Amino acid sequence: MPEPHPLDRAIELRVVDHDVVRGQTQPEWANMVGPFGGVTAAAILHAIDIHPDRLGGPIALTVNFAAPIADGHFEITRRAPRTNRTNQHWIVELSQEGEVKTTATAVFGNHRDTFSDTEASMPVVPGPDEIPRTAHTNLPTWVQMYDMRFANGSFSGGEIEIGPSSASTLWVRDVAQRELDFAALTALSDIFFPRIFLRRGVVPAGTISMTTYFHVDGGQLAALGGDFILGAAHGNRFDRGFFDQSAQLWSRDGALLATSYQIVYFKG
Amino acid sequence: MPEPHPLDRAIELRVVDHDVVRGQTQPEWANMVGPFGGVTAAAILHAIDIHPDRLGGPIALTVNFAAPIADGHFEITRRAPRTNRTNQHWIVELSQEGEVKTTATAVFGNHRDTFSDTEASMPVVPGPDEIPRTAHTNLPTWVQMYDMRFANGSFSGGEIEIGPSSASTLWVRDVAQRELDFAALTALSDIFFPRIFLRRGVVPAGTISMTTYFHVDGGQLAALGGDFILGAAHGNRFDRGFFDQSAQLWSRDGALLATSYQIVYFKG
Repeated sequence: MPEPHPLDRAIELRVVDHDVVRGQTQPEWANMVGPFGGVTAAAILHAIDIHPDRLGGPIALTVNFAAPIADGHFEITRRAPRTNRTNQHWIVELSQEGEVKTTATAVFGNHRDTFSDTEASMPVVPGPDEIPRTAHTNLPTWVQMYDMRFANGSFSGGEIEIGPSSASTLWVRDVAQRELDFAALTALSDIFFPRIFLRRGVVPAGTISMTTYFHVDGGQLAALGGDFILGAAHGNRFDRGFFDQSAQLWSRDGALLATSYQIVYFKG
Repeated sequence: MPEPHPLDRAIELRVVDHDVVRGQTQPEWANMVGPFGGVTAAAILHAIDIHPDRLGGPIALTVNFAAPIADGHFEITRRAPRTNRTNQHWIVELSQEGEVKTTATAVFGNHRDTFSDTEASMPVVPGPDEIPRTAHTNLPTWVQMYDMRFANGSFSGGEIEIGPSSASTLWVRDVAQRELDFAALTALSDIFFPRIFLRRGVVPAGTISMTTYFHVDGGQLAALGGDFILGAAHGNRFDRGFFDQSAQLWSRDGALLATSYQIVYFKG
């Protein structure tokens, strides 16, 4: 039997009781301190997904990175204080040794056929086959889990070209081409390095809170297989130790899969 | 003594115990069903602000509108599962008769001097004195609390011009010119009517979750007095019963005060 993919190991959760599950950080996802936030967010989403009372699919997820997660076990407590006919509201706390490290809220629910249109514009960039894979020297371990190809605003761990824009556009896929699902999409929504790097170079920075809105269903995601998706991110305002960044994730054929927003602390 | 402003009455909270406060909906803020979500968000932010353990000012607020709030009393329970040296993470539940109606998370914290820059561009539109106040026929009561002057994408409660863009840009101020503070800014971040109206006309729609990032401090807000601020909002993707909208709030002199994001359900 093949070894499970590192993302599947990172979101593997054992049931402790009706509302609590236990997981374990995985070395492949190591960040500067603790695991990559995107994988923590993926584990939280998955914890809701496997709850026996879960209704429908993910609509919105907000994850607050309250404190660094240590390597090792963690518990995720999730409860739904409100279940309506077509949607459900979740509150989540991730803790280690009784200390809360991450909080989250999520909305799950059922979709139905309606008017459909995408107003946002997909960035026009060369295809992933026309861009070499970006190097990842001196970057945290988790970056090796992705094949990233920057059309602009790149950072490969070496010198970074700073300028007046914090925008990046890149193709990205799982390096083992694991099939896309909501856990993978959640992790991808956090792959954008802190926008401040493109303005000031590498300075201490970390996401405090991330909100992701999901615009596709699981079947549409699975149909993309392990293909490249296009990510675009930019900062809006940098001020007094914080900035917010906005991101979009697109399929190669132009479907807006998710929109995601972060507030990030920085020094410098 | 003058009557307190309706916003101050709507966020007036009596202490029940260390973590619980009690408030009351106010008729001036009535929406189609229950109170205007922006004022509910403002009451939640204020509940944290007056907590004796609160650290610093608001950085991020996510409010999940789980169920309609009935006219009358409500309780807000807020606790800080994590307090760091410079920031603090809050979990909030608003309930009526023991039933959870709204959930929220917030990050508060201290700011410090750093690099500062705004990359987002303020929309270029005629000033508020060059645009007449928009009518509000047949609109919910709360709309009367604001003086709104649409530069584009208006809706005044009558016929709406539908088209290919869901963008609106408007000047808005409190009709009594109450001084701006974080509660007022939080309420303003929800003033944008559902973007689907500009695409499909008036259809059933309601915000499910809203996230606001705050980019100014209280002193900067107070210095704006009760002046007009510029709001801009647009939708990104409409699909299978939901869409997300992105909004920015600017001071007249070009400071990006807040960025705000919503996921909204709709029919039609």
